[in-house]
Amino acid sequence: MPTYHIEMMEGRTIEQKKQLVEAITRVTTEILGTAPESVDILITDVKRENWATGGKLWSERS
Amino acid sequence: MPTYHIEMMEGRTIEQKKQLVEAITRVTTEILGTAPESVDILITDVKRENWATGGKLWSERS
Amino acid sequence: MPTYHIEMMEGRTIEQKKQLVEAITRVTTEILGTAPESVDILITDVKRENWATGGKLWSERS
Amino acid sequence: MPTYHIEMMEGRTIEQKKQLVEAITRVTTEILGTAPESVDILITDVKRENWATGGKLWSERS
Amino acid sequence: MPTYHIEMMEGRTIEQKKQLVEAITRVTTEILGTAPESVDILITDVKRENWATGGKLWSERS
Amino acid sequence: MPTYHIEMMEGRTIEQKKQLVEAITRVTTEILGTAPESVDILITDVKRENWATGGKLWSERS
Repeated sequence: MPTYHIEMMEGRTIEQKKQLVEAITRVTTEILGTAPESVDILITDVKRENWATGGKLWSERS
Repeated sequence: MPTYHIEMMEGRTIEQKKQLVEAITRVTTEILGTAPESVDILITDVKRENWATGGKLWSERS
Repeated sequence: MPTYHIEMMEGRTIEQKKQLVEAITRVTTEILGTAPESVDILITDVKRENWATGGKLWSERS
Repeated sequence: MPTYHIEMMEGRTIEQKKQLVEAITRVTTEILGTAPESVDILITDVKRENWATGGKLWSERS
Repeated sequence: MPTYHIEMMEGRTIEQKKQLVEAITRVTTEILGTAPESVDILITDVKRENWATGGKLWSERS
Repeated sequence: MPTYHIEMMEGRTIEQKKQLVEAITRVTTEILGTAPESVDILITDVKRENWATGGKLWSERS
């Protein structure tokens, strides 16, 4: 613990995910004082047809 | 905010998702008085082998 | 199924929650063709100190 | 209710999922005294590139 | 991993939670072959006014 | 988007939460190239009696 869930639009590269989990783990251990091994991060790649803002799917936006 | 997560069996059409997010956003703004743009909806399409009720996967039901 | 999770700022009344779950269940059954009894809705009341947008907690906004 | 969400690395067989939901439903009804039909279980198969521990994606581990 | 989230009506005793997490961890390690230490379980106690089935909050049911 | 959910043991101060959401938003915008306003972070303070690792509630550990 802590445990993170990150939902983001699909299409991010492995390199971006790698950098992101490194950075989040680093700032978490600095600020909360936890061991890096206790930080779990789960990413969900969300399709544009499965995310809506303002009543409109992102797949319907131009 | 508010943020919705909807888990449903896979197989819904884009048209159904479109109508659903429109309707949910409409009733939310009417009842809670929030701006449509602040309503986020995330849909998860769940495989029948990943949902169980009563101890039985839906993929095992006839 | 489907199962909804709604996260919203704390402070909504029971009456608003009552109206919201009725309306969401109604539009869901109309659009997806499911039985009302199969619609589960879980609400999470989120404290302003536990929600941030743009890097700022809502409790820090004036 | 109760409703379970299980996140696990992808690669489990249907047979394992079948056994797992049966067993979880059984122990839940024994301990909480609920009817089996009221136990819902949703499984998420997580890709190794989407789970990090200690700041490192599991896909990067050897 | 795996990571469990259990949502249940508030009111369960610590003793029930204790038995439940022991039993779930045991069946998980037996069926999936993972180490007990890798099983994380998070429980959410849900108020009756925050759970609806069939369009009706459980706090409104008699 | 992206949307973060952070589950952590209860007891963190507002100051820690403030620093954490600032830092996470900063690294996210740097690595993913999104606008800060599109980053939403929701924190859940988890009681020790509601988190188990290795089949044991954290409230039962000494």
